[in-house]
Formats: sequence, structure tokens, C-alpha cells
Amino acid sequence: MSGQVREALRFPASPAQQIDPYLPPSFTSTSTSQTESKPFVTLTFATSLDSHLSLAPGVQTVLSGPESKAMTHYLRSKHDAILIGAGTAVADDPSLNCRIEGVGGYGAEGLSGQPRPIVIDPNGRWNVTPESKVIKLAGSQRGRGPWIVTSKESSIAEEKRKLLETVGGRVLKASTAAERPSISWANILQVLATEGVKSVMIEGGGAVINDLLSPGNLELVDSIIVTIAPVWLGKGGVQVCPDERVEGVNRVPVGRLEDVRWVPLGDDVVLCGHPNKS
Amino acid sequence: MSGQVREALRFPASPAQQIDPYLPPSFTSTSTSQTESKPFVTLTFATSLDSHLSLAPGVQTVLSGPESKAMTHYLRSKHDAILIGAGTAVADDPSLNCRIEGVGGYGAEGLSGQPRPIVIDPNGRWNVTPESKVIKLAGSQRGRGPWIVTSKESSIAEEKRKLLETVGGRVLKASTAAERPSISWANILQVLATEGVKSVMIEGGGAVINDLLSPGNLELVDSIIVTIAPVWLGKGGVQVCPDERVEGVNRVPVGRLEDVRWVPLGDDVVLCGHPNKS
Repeated sequence: MSGQVREALRFPASPAQQIDPYLPPSFTSTSTSQTESKPFVTLTFATSLDSHLSLAPGVQTVLSGPESKAMTHYLRSKHDAILIGAGTAVADDPSLNCRIEGVGGYGAEGLSGQPRPIVIDPNGRWNVTPESKVIKLAGSQRGRGPWIVTSKESSIAEEKRKLLETVGGRVLKASTAAERPSISWANILQVLATEGVKSVMIEGGGAVINDLLSPGNLELVDSIIVTIAPVWLGKGGVQVCPDERVEGVNRVPVGRLEDVRWVPLGDDVVLCGHPNKS
Repeated sequence: MSGQVREALRFPASPAQQIDPYLPPSFTSTSTSQTESKPFVTLTFATSLDSHLSLAPGVQTVLSGPESKAMTHYLRSKHDAILIGAGTAVADDPSLNCRIEGVGGYGAEGLSGQPRPIVIDPNGRWNVTPESKVIKLAGSQRGRGPWIVTSKESSIAEEKRKLLETVGGRVLKASTAAERPSISWANILQVLATEGVKSVMIEGGGAVINDLLSPGNLELVDSIIVTIAPVWLGKGGVQVCPDERVEGVNRVPVGRLEDVRWVPLGDDVVLCGHPNKS
């Protein structure tokens, strides 16, 4: 147990208090807002000054400092689930657990405070194996078993489904609209709500973030928390830059944040806000 | 005079004190650092979260709030000169003066505190006329006469040269390297130093900023002050994103800031730092 606690991260109370108003209502709340058709959605990611997530597709790039890493794990502890796209799962072999001191596996028994990892994978791209970090962590009680959300259950090989189930994970099916093969965000969130997920933190990658920032999807997002590191990565990286928005004949900004708060954190800054839904 | 003072801007002391350490040494200093071959260079601009300066080339886009506007004029009051590229001069018809309360033309006599407007125009693109804002402001003692820096004096029509001279402006020639027609930043800064300019604030546009952030030029920059507004503009805008940097076979970040300070200002944040020159 001591080895596990040694890996645990701490996030200071001072920045936490500034960020808390942007987080989902407490899990213990029984207010009617908890029974809605979609979970509370927090979109979070870290970029360079030139709005890049990484130097190139599939290349993990350390942008932000250790304080920002601790913040990410603090945020994870405040959500029922964390969600990524299949591309990120393939490229990063991510841990997708919470390592804040005091959650299950990091100072506490059980899995309390551990979010459910969810991978959106319509086409069965994620090559999950017993060696995947998320599987090993779930197997050692330091994270929950992952869910895969797909469009056809046959997209996910039987072997993968069984592997998920050995660690408490599952394959879930979201319906697709006839006219497009991809799953809509509304459908994904509806499936999660049906499964009892009251809050989800969406972490990436580029395709997922740009899709959620686009008109028609941004209204599904409740809070946005962006970490910005004081570095320029330069052309050719994976960029957060949503599709253009046109009203009449004029281009207009795609999205603006309201209730804005900037929280300096080490060399980085954390931007918290709510999407303007007008 | 009262009409002029009514237009004047104020920048609060509290954010000013946080930004001051990134500004040039005081004009009255006689230290040896003031006699170097180049002026103190501050690069400053405002972007969206997706690192855009504007929605489209030639389209002025109001990104930042009134506090950021006042800061820009405060910064201008602390520099001998402000510099833009010809593209921005053509697109924006900018005023390029300082409207902080207490400088010349805005509460004080003469031109004290007014920076010299400088337009880099190797090919004579800037269509300056008696109706240009910068000329009218200089004619009414609310700004200095602009300088044009070009590569061949014949690039600037005689009519424009005379117009500049009527308001105290000039055409300056910077030498070009034989192998490329454009003027190097080192040569531009050398010309300014020769003319007694001890500090210059470089404001844009996109081509100028991306060029200065690129390897080989970034080392000429002393301070960087970037305002970031909590908005996404979307694809197709004018973006700050320097060329990639490769070391060996690997891409690496193009530039990183040191001595970083983030100053929230209204809904925006102001990032101050020094380029890492290692």
C-alpha cells in the first residue's frame, strides 16, 4: 500500500477552490438536475500558445507542468467518468485513472473517487490488451474497468469484450443516425445517463475536442477547463481549432466563454468558463 | 483640449505594476545597455484561444476587452517606437499613437510619451494618404510622423515620402542580404538603433509575428506580452503559429517563455515572459 501512496498526487486547496465552481454538482446531491437526460459535461485539455495538443499526431507531448498534472487528477476525482476518443487510446495507452491522494487505490480502500474510463470507438480501433495500462490498473484495484462506446457491438472483437469484463468493464452501444455513420454526442451522453453516469470529463483528443467545440455540440458542454502552457509548438501539430461558423454571409466567432476565471498554476494558466449558449 | 482628454485612456496601477518588469529600461537611463546595436524589443499581440489574430485576412476582429485596449496604449507609452508590417497598415488604417491620459496630445503639451510609428514596407504596399489616421493624428499633434522602413528608397513613391515629411516622418532604408529580397530583422533593428530608437514594440500582423517567433529571430526579442481572449474563432483566420523546428530527426517546440507571469485583465489574460534563448 505504501508504494501506491508514494505515487499519489496532491492538488493544493487554493487553486482547487477557484476551480470548484466549474465542477459538477456533488455526487451526493439528489436534486432534479441529477436525473436529466445527459450527464454534466466538463471539456478539458491542455494546449500550447499556438493551440496545439501535441507536436504531431500520435506523439505525446508534455506541455504543462506538474501542478497541471495534479489538477487533471483532481478533476478526475470529481467526475463519475472520463472520456476519450479511440485515437487517443491507441496513441497514448493512457492510464485513465485518478491518482489524487485519498481516492481508492491511492490511500483509500475500494474504488471510491475513481472515475469510469470510457473510450468512444465506433470502428473497433482501440487495440486494448491485458498489457494496456487501463486494464492493468483496473486489475490491481487502482482504477475502474473501462467502457467502450461503439455504434455496432460487432465492431468490438469478442476477445476485447471479454477482457473488459474480467476487470469490470463493458461494451455499450449508442445508436447512430441513419444519415451518418458516426455516433452523435447527444446519443453518447444519453447512453451514459441511462447507465447512471451523472458527470463526465471529456479529455480528448483533437478530433473529439474540435467536434465538441463546433456549433451544435458546444451547447452540450457545461464547463470548459483549458490549461495553457507558455510554449509555441509550431506548424504541423495537432491543433484545437474548430470549424468555422458563418451567420448570413459573415464569419463569426465559433464560441465564447462566460463567467471566465484565469487561474495561474506554475508556469501555466488554467482557464475556466461556461460556453456562451446564446 | 478637453475633447482630446475625453478620448484618453487609463490603465490601472495594479496590473501595470505586474507588467512593468517586462518593459524596456527607463528612457532616462544612461546605462551601457542603452548603446547596443539593437533596441529593446517587445513583441505584443492579442489572440483567441485558437491562436487567431482575426477571423480572416484583412478583417479587423475585436478580440479583447476595454482593459486590454488600455494596456496596449500603456505599453505604447513605454516605448520609443511601435512597429507593424505593411499588410496591417493596409488592412487596418491604424492610428499607431498613444492615447493614455497624460501623454502629449492627451492631457500634456508636445509629443512626450508618444511613440514613433514605424511601418516595414519593402515593396511600397502601404497606401498612405493625407486621410490616413496616422497622418491626421501627427498633423494634429496627437502622434509622431510615421517612418517607413524599406529595402530600396525607390520603392516608396516620392509623393508618399513628401507626405511623411510634412508631419515629421521619414523613409529609411535597411540593407538586404544578396540572397533574399526581404529585410532581415537584425538589419531593421540596426537601422532603428542608428536612428536613436532605444525600444520598439512590435505589434503585428500575422506575418511579422510568426517571422519573429521563428528560430533565428526569436533571440532578437527581449519581452513577449500576449493577450488571450476566451473565444474560439475557428478555421480560416489569421493564425499565430510559427514554422516548425527540427533538431536532428525530431520536431521540438519552437519557443518557450521564461520568467512567466499571467495577469488576468477583465475577461482576458495577459501573458508576460522572456524568450528562452537556450
